[in-house]
Amino acid sequence: MKIVELNVRSHKRCEMIDITAEIGRILREKELRNGTITLYTPHTTAAITINENADPDVLHDMLYGLSKLVPLDPQFQHAEGNSDAHIKGSLIGASEILLVEAGKLQLGTWQGVYFCEFDGPRSRRVKIKLSES
Amino acid sequence: MKIVELNVRSHKRCEMIDITAEIGRILREKELRNGTITLYTPHTTAAITINENADPDVLHDMLYGLSKLVPLDPQFQHAEGNSDAHIKGSLIGASEILLVEAGKLQLGTWQGVYFCEFDGPRSRRVKIKLSES
Amino acid sequence: MKIVELNVRSHKRCEMIDITAEIGRILREKELRNGTITLYTPHTTAAITINENADPDVLHDMLYGLSKLVPLDPQFQHAEGNSDAHIKGSLIGASEILLVEAGKLQLGTWQGVYFCEFDGPRSRRVKIKLSES
Repeated sequence: MKIVELNVRSHKRCEMIDITAEIGRILREKELRNGTITLYTPHTTAAITINENADPDVLHDMLYGLSKLVPLDPQFQHAEGNSDAHIKGSLIGASEILLVEAGKLQLGTWQGVYFCEFDGPRSRRVKIKLSES
Repeated sequence: MKIVELNVRSHKRCEMIDITAEIGRILREKELRNGTITLYTPHTTAAITINENADPDVLHDMLYGLSKLVPLDPQFQHAEGNSDAHIKGSLIGASEILLVEAGKLQLGTWQGVYFCEFDGPRSRRVKIKLSES
Repeated sequence: MKIVELNVRSHKRCEMIDITAEIGRILREKELRNGTITLYTPHTTAAITINENADPDVLHDMLYGLSKLVPLDPQFQHAEGNSDAHIKGSLIGASEILLVEAGKLQLGTWQGVYFCEFDGPRSRRVKIKLSES
């Protein structure tokens, strides 16, 4: 199936944006029965992850924890001053793969899919590839 | 092919459980010749990774290193007190993809596949999708 | 399609080696029109990632940042003394998935694909699986 592009708008420097509902909508429109969905961000200071969708405090703690883990550092040389965001991007990763069976997205009870912004606010994209298998 | 579910039982808060043999067994039963195997955990405080299967000290050092990397923090707000486990889950990632050729799992000599428990002990699941390609 | 193997030679202990051009060449040779490319390293002290291909300072900062994040630690027990490399391997991950549409690799403007060496110098391999879908 052709790649679908999803536009995402971030409003802070670091933010986790829930895109689960959009993926569910695309799955219904494309009528994939069995296979995989690959989510891919073409940006180098952003990422895709799967994590808890119930208590928003988890998202706060994840962004706070990642910022403590990878602070800005005086030894960074990249002139744009966003090397922390590049490192977070590679730690979390540019893609996620989801499973589909009998037309249903196989997420766990507490799982949501998140676009991770590490150098916003910006206008961003996610490429979504549905594959039958 | 239909998704296969593997049950995994953890016995500590943090633990790496070798599931390589189970994946080999499923591959033989399903008779996939060429393609990929996607491993996916539906949990938000666990992960899947590939690492050394020879010296168990590597697993000790990995769990110890991850715990130093992401300690519990007084600024965490999530009431369950397991935000470190959520962060580790997203750092390691909810899925792994393995390659299969001529019916053989394409692991490196020293590689094993591990279910990573970050908030056990619990009863857990791994969803396994075999795809021909 | 059959797995293609790419040989990579690292020259330092930690190094990010751009393999984007090689992947483009394999894509043209194999004439994949629509689908995915899975990149997989069979090593446990290396990884694959996608990040900026414009300013080489980003690569410097990423390697420096990862080394600050996961230093060698006197509590590590693995006798080879490279547990930091094993941890970095699992944090960045053994594989990446790329999208292909109309014969074109769907990378972002600033994205390149990197083999990450964390315990070189060594002779390394990347397994590349092209799948139509």
